[in-house]
Amino acid sequence: MAAYELYAFWRSSAAYRVRVALTLKGLSAEEHAIDLDAGDQYGDAFRTINPLAAVPALIVPGHPPLTQSLAILEYLDETVPNPPLLPADPLGRARVRSIAAGLAADTHPLVVPRVRRYLTTIGGFDQAAWRAWQIQWFTTGLQGLERRLATDAGTGLYCHGDTVTVADILLMSIVAVMRMFNIAIADIPTIDRIVALCETQEAFARAAPLKQTGAPTA
Amino acid sequence: MAAYELYAFWRSSAAYRVRVALTLKGLSAEEHAIDLDAGDQYGDAFRTINPLAAVPALIVPGHPPLTQSLAILEYLDETVPNPPLLPADPLGRARVRSIAAGLAADTHPLVVPRVRRYLTTIGGFDQAAWRAWQIQWFTTGLQGLERRLATDAGTGLYCHGDTVTVADILLMSIVAVMRMFNIAIADIPTIDRIVALCETQEAFARAAPLKQTGAPTA
Repeated sequence: MAAYELYAFWRSSAAYRVRVALTLKGLSAEEHAIDLDAGDQYGDAFRTINPLAAVPALIVPGHPPLTQSLAILEYLDETVPNPPLLPADPLGRARVRSIAAGLAADTHPLVVPRVRRYLTTIGGFDQAAWRAWQIQWFTTGLQGLERRLATDAGTGLYCHGDTVTVADILLMSIVAVMRMFNIAIADIPTIDRIVALCETQEAFARAAPLKQTGAPTA
Repeated sequence: MAAYELYAFWRSSAAYRVRVALTLKGLSAEEHAIDLDAGDQYGDAFRTINPLAAVPALIVPGHPPLTQSLAILEYLDETVPNPPLLPADPLGRARVRSIAAGLAADTHPLVVPRVRRYLTTIGGFDQAAWRAWQIQWFTTGLQGLERRLATDAGTGLYCHGDTVTVADILLMSIVAVMRMFNIAIADIPTIDRIVALCETQEAFARAAPLKQTGAPTA
């Protein structure tokens, strides 16, 4: 097995996605903790790995660092095809990628640390305003997804069919962050059902933020 | 040729991406204008097409609507392989997808109309604060991309090699929106060079916001 290395942060939703995918593919990676709270991502050492100062970055020996969680998931699926994380048919793949993008692009980037920093300093948000902002976008994203999962014929035991796909990985990565913030969304029964099923699986359990190096203990 | 239909809005960055890809693939689509300023996206008619109330939505006859620009671009590339919009090698594909995600996920979702609505009402932003916010994220996204393009061996005439990829389509879709807002970023020579080359091409020229139905006329 290749000696992959993963630059990550215990609480990062995007790093969580890569951890899950690696485990599902039967791969492992030596993980290096980049403390985003302490600003490690802006240091020269990490900037050499990712000039954009963001985790995750996956190192495949002999190659430039891979960045952006969705691009890394696609890479892993192309280079280690089993088990597949995307359906075989183009329409199914489009549906899974659309669900994933609705969370990775339209939801998560609005609630990341750099946005919190801006809004709670220059933006003048107090803690209550920041929390209302978080709840607004998590609610918009998950209620939109619920409407879709509840009505689409493509929904199965998981977001798409009866096996785990990139869509489930994205969903779980958002739920993991919401839990860190003690945010719960009501009336999303299809999502709740899928989350409960994913939680029974080792790949998701092992990726949990509180189990990672650097996480607060107790 | 299939009778595709595209639900779009003249100013939408995400709809622009699909227009460019369709033209590059030699496809055409009948375009339906959804007036995002007037709230058409929230009407029952469009909600039936996209429950998430967002453009673009691409209709391929006989199939459910395709949504999310990056998922649509991947679908078009899988179903109409020539000319390819992604490189053939997994590492190259990962690089192109990473560049695209840095713009589609980390940059654009922060400056869309629903975020403007929230910040300029509940968020208490005045017009100057909103403009500072826009400039902050466009600058962060494009300066980060410039660092990357200027140093990566993968950069060619375009963002990746010497042919147009999804990365260029994303870059141009962000530049198109910045121009609508009269925002210019200094000291991004590699990006400026690639943008100038893309602008010579019919596919990008035809997708320009001000050339679309519903755009303001002079």
